[in-house]
Amino acid sequence: MIPSAAHANLGLDTNPRLDAPSVPDGKPARLLDSIRAPGDVKRLAPAQLPQLAAELRDTIIAVTSRNGGHVGPNLGVVELAIALHRVFDTPADQIVFDVSHQCYAHKLLTGRGGAFFEKLRRTGGASGFMSRAESPHDAFGAGHAGTALSAALGLAVARDLRAAREHVVAVCGDAAFTCGITMEALNNVVASTRRLIVILNDNEWSIAKNVGAIAHYLNRLSTNPTYNKIHADLERFFTSLPGGHDLHRTWMRWKRETKDFFVESSLFEKFGLRYIGPIDGHNLDDLVKNLEFAKSCDTPILLHVLTKKGLGLPAAIVSPEKFHGASPYDPLTGESRAAAPGAAAPAPAWQEFFGRALLRRARADPRVIGITAAMPAGTGLAPLAAALPGQFFDVGIAEEHAVLFAAGLAAGGMRPVVAIYSTFLQRAFDQIIHDVCLQNLPVTFCLDRAGLSPNDGPTHHGLFDLACLRSVPNALVMQPRNEDELADMLHTALAHPGPAFIRYPRGPAAGVAPKPAPLALPPGRAEVLRDGADIIIWALGPMVDTALALAARLEEEAVPRISASGPRISVGVVNARFVKPLDRALLLRQAASSPLLVTMEDHMLAGGFGSAVLEALQDAGLPAAVERIGWPDEFIGHGSDIASLRAAHGLAPGQIGQRILARWRKINHQGAGTV
Amino acid sequence: MIPSAAHANLGLDTNPRLDAPSVPDGKPARLLDSIRAPGDVKRLAPAQLPQLAAELRDTIIAVTSRNGGHVGPNLGVVELAIALHRVFDTPADQIVFDVSHQCYAHKLLTGRGGAFFEKLRRTGGASGFMSRAESPHDAFGAGHAGTALSAALGLAVARDLRAAREHVVAVCGDAAFTCGITMEALNNVVASTRRLIVILNDNEWSIAKNVGAIAHYLNRLSTNPTYNKIHADLERFFTSLPGGHDLHRTWMRWKRETKDFFVESSLFEKFGLRYIGPIDGHNLDDLVKNLEFAKSCDTPILLHVLTKKGLGLPAAIVSPEKFHGASPYDPLTGESRAAAPGAAAPAPAWQEFFGRALLRRARADPRVIGITAAMPAGTGLAPLAAALPGQFFDVGIAEEHAVLFAAGLAAGGMRPVVAIYSTFLQRAFDQIIHDVCLQNLPVTFCLDRAGLSPNDGPTHHGLFDLACLRSVPNALVMQPRNEDELADMLHTALAHPGPAFIRYPRGPAAGVAPKPAPLALPPGRAEVLRDGADIIIWALGPMVDTALALAARLEEEAVPRISASGPRISVGVVNARFVKPLDRALLLRQAASSPLLVTMEDHMLAGGFGSAVLEALQDAGLPAAVERIGWPDEFIGHGSDIASLRAAHGLAPGQIGQRILARWRKINHQGAGTV
Repeated sequence: MIPSAAHANLGLDTNPRLDAPSVPDGKPARLLDSIRAPGDVKRLAPAQLPQLAAELRDTIIAVTSRNGGHVGPNLGVVELAIALHRVFDTPADQIVFDVSHQCYAHKLLTGRGGAFFEKLRRTGGASGFMSRAESPHDAFGAGHAGTALSAALGLAVARDLRAAREHVVAVCGDAAFTCGITMEALNNVVASTRRLIVILNDNEWSIAKNVGAIAHYLNRLSTNPTYNKIHADLERFFTSLPGGHDLHRTWMRWKRETKDFFVESSLFEKFGLRYIGPIDGHNLDDLVKNLEFAKSCDTPILLHVLTKKGLGLPAAIVSPEKFHGASPYDPLTGESRAAAPGAAAPAPAWQEFFGRALLRRARADPRVIGITAAMPAGTGLAPLAAALPGQFFDVGIAEEHAVLFAAGLAAGGMRPVVAIYSTFLQRAFDQIIHDVCLQNLPVTFCLDRAGLSPNDGPTHHGLFDLACLRSVPNALVMQPRNEDELADMLHTALAHPGPAFIRYPRGPAAGVAPKPAPLALPPGRAEVLRDGADIIIWALGPMVDTALALAARLEEEAVPRISASGPRISVGVVNARFVKPLDRALLLRQAASSPLLVTMEDHMLAGGFGSAVLEALQDAGLPAAVERIGWPDEFIGHGSDIASLRAAHGLAPGQIGQRILARWRKINHQGAGTV
Repeated sequence: MIPSAAHANLGLDTNPRLDAPSVPDGKPARLLDSIRAPGDVKRLAPAQLPQLAAELRDTIIAVTSRNGGHVGPNLGVVELAIALHRVFDTPADQIVFDVSHQCYAHKLLTGRGGAFFEKLRRTGGASGFMSRAESPHDAFGAGHAGTALSAALGLAVARDLRAAREHVVAVCGDAAFTCGITMEALNNVVASTRRLIVILNDNEWSIAKNVGAIAHYLNRLSTNPTYNKIHADLERFFTSLPGGHDLHRTWMRWKRETKDFFVESSLFEKFGLRYIGPIDGHNLDDLVKNLEFAKSCDTPILLHVLTKKGLGLPAAIVSPEKFHGASPYDPLTGESRAAAPGAAAPAPAWQEFFGRALLRRARADPRVIGITAAMPAGTGLAPLAAALPGQFFDVGIAEEHAVLFAAGLAAGGMRPVVAIYSTFLQRAFDQIIHDVCLQNLPVTFCLDRAGLSPNDGPTHHGLFDLACLRSVPNALVMQPRNEDELADMLHTALAHPGPAFIRYPRGPAAGVAPKPAPLALPPGRAEVLRDGADIIIWALGPMVDTALALAARLEEEAVPRISASGPRISVGVVNARFVKPLDRALLLRQAASSPLLVTMEDHMLAGGFGSAVLEALQDAGLPAAVERIGWPDEFIGHGSDIASLRAAHGLAPGQIGQRILARWRKINHQGAGTV
């Protein structure tokens, strides 16, 4: 659960760092330790700011090298965050960070350092993203890209309607402008308010290297030779004059106000925003001056700030995509941290197998096209991109376009595969209904991160896809038990004449080597893995292995049966495979003979797989007893790992076992005795 | 159900018009009657084309004045459709119409005239939209805006991958460029293909008058005085020379190729598309020449075509919003057709009541803000816009931005109300989860057209919202029985501290006058309207009145009860009011005492309201018998009216009664005797 604002504030009030003992003898005091609120940033002398920047970078590297996190984007905006808190007064002024991949320095400057930040992305620690529940300095939360400009426009209009005067600042990465929502917002800025400050944080990267016309355009803007030449000439001219220093100051001011005349007529001006830039995003002086100027503007203004993703960590500059969002790493070498000594290496991740399986299919069939929305590595498409670049498209952070583009490809005879995180597919639900499924086009969707993303938290958990997809006609919806079955399902989907959806979680797969050649699975056919007469568990995806272990334990518990033909209950397990269509025939046979069915899924209970089972049973007039195991009706917060989050919500294997037994006893009117 | 391609083709083959007897004596033959396929358009002499255009307009006016339909946009593109079919060869070449509000002339030129077109938007007649199932000339279907450029890009890339040569043309209204998907696609064009023709059909209107910076920009482009002056000067110069005619031809060609130099640096050029325009969209000669030129280009090209929405129908030019999508009207006066003589006038529509109720609330509370995505009239917001323009925002066809903007307003202390059709809310599902509900922001959503839009068909039915919303924590989801309860629910939503969703259908409301002042409804509390011991119907929204009538009829049928305490079954009715949270307490009490529950909803069965009831019963360990009434797992086609579509899917009141009785008998082991 998301902590309430009150709870989070309480957490901050008792933040151990704030009560930390004084600095150990001899070691120079860190400036950062004196920053408890943005006012403290303003009290520093300008000459102290580079040290503060260095300390922020050290802290970010120290913590992310242990906890993982968004390294590159956060290192790039350290000076920008300092400048923002020099110029603006949060929480009165409101800063909205797009995606909020770049909020760590902001958090460290707004009272969330010390132990709270050291537990970044862990249970009880700071969220990796902006969060209104965590701090009043976080004006608007985000974990998905492209939302800042719209949200900031809402905040600005609310301010105007309240006749208030605070500043609203949207900090958007260049990649946000590949996302349609940002363009929709851009189209509405001028008609809606006269006071909005947009910072285009241009690091030439979204997650992977930016793609498309806007990236190309921004690059031309920031390297425009006409502008650079005139700038250099005039600067020389001024400084060569007597009294040139004052004149140079005037020129600097004039330059800010007229810079746009030197660059090609700006895209942003076509949308009515005043354009200033490019500005060196690591020059605190320039940043502060330009932000002060923006503050005084009575017209919407965009500051084009150039930053270096990963600045301060050489490895992050060498490998920007790896260090966009990294798992724990060695801060010196950049190598990913090895598993703890003695621990078994985790199995390769689901998306690795997906990427390999897809590459095999694409080699065999030139109609197979992989599509990603700015996630070539995250989704496992990188090997396809490298091996068959003609069959790979990265469309930028543009999920709606990704799905529609796939629909067009399918209408043109191709076999597109959209590889996308479950949480980001929420962006394209209309395209799934209106374009893909209504036209019954053969697009395959591979939904990565279906289930929890524990360190990222509620913006990234993939828990809503089944509820949506189940309601859409023509959709084939499945989840594999292991990586071998994932290959089978990809094979099945690519042979299916309509849309198909395959979901699988984040993290290591089951460790089952795929067969040499995948098999086509008959749509809507489940797999009985273990027979049972009393309780039958229908499990989805990796929950199948949990179910098998539970079934064995439940049988061992020696719970008496009511319709006794033996001393113990017998518990069956079914690998559901298909959420839609369900294997109704098998389900109805089992429901007719077994007193209790159990469903297990890594999804919200409302509208999920278990709900599909209830519907099928009722439609057949068989209202059997079904215990549904899945996520309850609340947003699940971030935490150190999946196991602890599951346990906190009653979903650890032992807790599930208890619930099944309790239901069993209830059915058998045995009360709630001990096991 | 959508007709299969085979079925639709069969329908066309037996199209009565194609076998029509020869023209009645004396009357000159219509050119349109000779057009059976696009090849026939090409065989006409250029001089005949204006007559063809006039006949197309006459046909469109004649049919839409009887059937209703998208009048204005279709009248505006008649010459464009003729020019497209003069220059391109469908179905080999592929034309994608955005929204496909403007496909009537295309349909009439591709073998879908006569009786098939006369039944436009009616059962068995032409769909009002492009439909792959209806004709191979329809390359891609659409009913939502902003999809054409992405889909066309997919078709173009598929062509490139097949090493084929056909042309792909996207016809986009200017409003499509307020929609983020179009901008996402635009960003990807140049990186994806070298051959794509985009036609910007600029009529200055989306549905209402266009809003935002892009509309303003296009207007500047099309009225640029520099361009117009240079153009006129040079034209005079050339034609004054000896041999001026040939020179003028050369100039015309050069002009096409260089026109972009005269206008301000084009927005579209920033995205790498070649820009040509503006072009008079009613000059067939100009259109054909420019399309021929575009055909020869080996670079993506955008033709900016100016058209007049509603051309040919004076009333449509005077009232463009009314005639965007109109109900039947008098073609001479433009007046809406009165109801048939003797028929009672229908009650005012749901959205009228919503608009009035919202205006009252907005007058009383300046924090209440109405937001629409280009639908001020359709959603009922026009009175608010007129009376309190400062509390009204039309953001263009930009549903994602609309919801995010509302989230920003709510975070800034406002009480935004997003008025949107259920089918278009599908666009903003991610913003609902990630921005509104996760942050528990008090945004009210008023979901119009929840249920069937019979004449529009599958792209417009609002049947998926509950399945999605039910799975989202913090969402309050409700549906009013009548317009009085709608006012109560709006009042309830605006007082609720988190997000609230109110859904209601298209068309006339129940005819119940709202109370002078609305009441706050306790969230999650249902209303018992009729007691019953044997069967209890939980009905949602307007289904409540159907349920009351059914209950009375079922009692009259004198079906024997099994636990007889009287000669007849007794049937209760509950007005569910809230889908989330459900009134679990009432539900469980009733389930414990009644052998059969029935749910009735205007929504897909999968994941809908009935599914919520099943979940609640199972969670309480009460697997009671529940007969769920709602829409089956297939896309519902278009049809003349709701009643006929319901009857075709077993959902007419009598059919529902039969199903309930059949289930009742099954429960009571009475077999399937006659009633």
